[in-house]
Amino acid sequence: MDRASCTVAVDATGGDDHSPQSVVGAVRFALSLNPSLRLIVYGPPSFRDEVISAAARVPGGSTRKGALRLEFREAPESIPQDESPRAVLEGYPRAAMRLAIESVRAGEAQAVVSAGGTGPLVTLSRHILGTIGRLRPALAARMPSGPGRFALMLDLGANASCGAADLHDFARLGQAAARVALGIASPRVALLNVGTEQGKGNRLIHEARDLMRADAALSFQGYLEANRIFRGDADVIVTDGFTGNVALKAAEGVAGIFGAQGGIKRFFARLSRPEWLLPWQYNGSWLLGVRGVVVKSHGSAGVEALAVAMTEAARGAAGDLATAMERELA
Amino acid sequence: MDRASCTVAVDATGGDDHSPQSVVGAVRFALSLNPSLRLIVYGPPSFRDEVISAAARVPGGSTRKGALRLEFREAPESIPQDESPRAVLEGYPRAAMRLAIESVRAGEAQAVVSAGGTGPLVTLSRHILGTIGRLRPALAARMPSGPGRFALMLDLGANASCGAADLHDFARLGQAAARVALGIASPRVALLNVGTEQGKGNRLIHEARDLMRADAALSFQGYLEANRIFRGDADVIVTDGFTGNVALKAAEGVAGIFGAQGGIKRFFARLSRPEWLLPWQYNGSWLLGVRGVVVKSHGSAGVEALAVAMTEAARGAAGDLATAMERELA
Repeated sequence: MDRASCTVAVDATGGDDHSPQSVVGAVRFALSLNPSLRLIVYGPPSFRDEVISAAARVPGGSTRKGALRLEFREAPESIPQDESPRAVLEGYPRAAMRLAIESVRAGEAQAVVSAGGTGPLVTLSRHILGTIGRLRPALAARMPSGPGRFALMLDLGANASCGAADLHDFARLGQAAARVALGIASPRVALLNVGTEQGKGNRLIHEARDLMRADAALSFQGYLEANRIFRGDADVIVTDGFTGNVALKAAEGVAGIFGAQGGIKRFFARLSRPEWLLPWQYNGSWLLGVRGVVVKSHGSAGVEALAVAMTEAARGAAGDLATAMERELA
Repeated sequence: MDRASCTVAVDATGGDDHSPQSVVGAVRFALSLNPSLRLIVYGPPSFRDEVISAAARVPGGSTRKGALRLEFREAPESIPQDESPRAVLEGYPRAAMRLAIESVRAGEAQAVVSAGGTGPLVTLSRHILGTIGRLRPALAARMPSGPGRFALMLDLGANASCGAADLHDFARLGQAAARVALGIASPRVALLNVGTEQGKGNRLIHEARDLMRADAALSFQGYLEANRIFRGDADVIVTDGFTGNVALKAAEGVAGIFGAQGGIKRFFARLSRPEWLLPWQYNGSWLLGVRGVVVKSHGSAGVEALAVAMTEAARGAAGDLATAMERELA
């Protein structure tokens, strides 16, 4: 971050374990790693003391008057992952997720991080922050595609059902984000499919291909097979939210098997792991297409991942990602 | 194999490289590994000499009169991967794939192996061999799910578009195959989804869940996330052919990265690889739901994989898998 300071709002209620432990660890990590970061943490009253004392133990994190770089705000409600959009919008006025997003709209924070349910996060972000143009928002993550290189893949689960026009929207969002966040001037856009021949896939794929091909503003490269996701063949990989989520989790599942072994094999797995694959498991995903920086962390992410998601959010805020995206897509 | 002998028909035209090399290597491997195996190899005339001389170098593979355990039959046509179903049915009377499948219908061979296009293979197999009941055929593969354990996943790409009734068919096919081929009396059936809460997924998923739940003959366990595919949580994993193909290739892509490194990391990757994950890359997939044993090998599979696919086909033939499946599903 080269800006003076930025503030990230954190929804502390979303993790799979409902204890403050991972939030406490992540807060300490994130504040230590990012000296100019401020956090506003929204969580249940029972989290207050532990979260504040965590911040107080970070160098520069507190004075005698209390934590300078962390503010804890009570949010007594949390939203179940599976809640319906209507209930999400109408039923939880004091939910941590809602209050955190509202603090971005109010300008108190420049970005928000949540490990809560994807559905509620998308619903509330669209409603409170609004969307860019009429594009359908999508979750995007950086997939490692070689040493020091990344491809953006989207949608990773914001939309369980997608039409061809949605996939075209994702291509436009991905292209803009690859320019703004990855610094790639002319991103190569590909459509995830079961083969590379023109006839492969289904009607959705063929219609989306035609839309993307007809869009002169896109550098559309055609189809990409899932075994090439990590090979650097494309800078933006477009897929529907169902398929993208499954592909990501299948890949994580295999990577996890190598790491989850016992004894000597675990040791060898660590030695054999390509360094460039490492950051992957920690990356938060970005909700692209809303007017604000929204980062989703895995529900089961653990301390490091939540801290990295906070850092990603801070980077997005410092780079004024939301404004840059709007400019790209104007 | 405990039967006296069995014959497998091989479509030698399907590989991604159009040379006889991988077929030659696979033929030698398969005949050496399976002393009671006979092969009928269909391929272009240019393959004849190399394939026959390969068989002649296998112990017991030939007499002075020629190869005993291998018969080469000329098939001058090969079918492009992307050919339309109509053209596949009408346009290639002398294609190796068609002739190989016909030899199963004629009773000359008990199983067929092809590394050709999935579309043509499914179209011709359905047309020539017929389907079991009115079930929609699907490609299934054994996914390693722990030391010595496997789960069947289907569909892996026979159907790029699926309805809920198709997914229910896949569940029935998978259950029957898990009993017959994996020896699991009461297979646990799960539906691949983006989460485990009831509301997760899309309409297709919810309709398929309702059908499977209402089927008292299925032991339906609910949803499974893709990061659990390799964890042994289910014996049969049901998904549509598009998603299944993407999930499989994403997983293969990550596994491949560990193996594809250079130098010392490659060495460590080999040491760290769980043994039980190893057979995976070599498994052929089974086309379930047709009246005959049809095994698809990867187009890019290489010598060992094609040989293993032949061995799998021989096992299926020896166990009379096709008849057993029909009995299960009667």
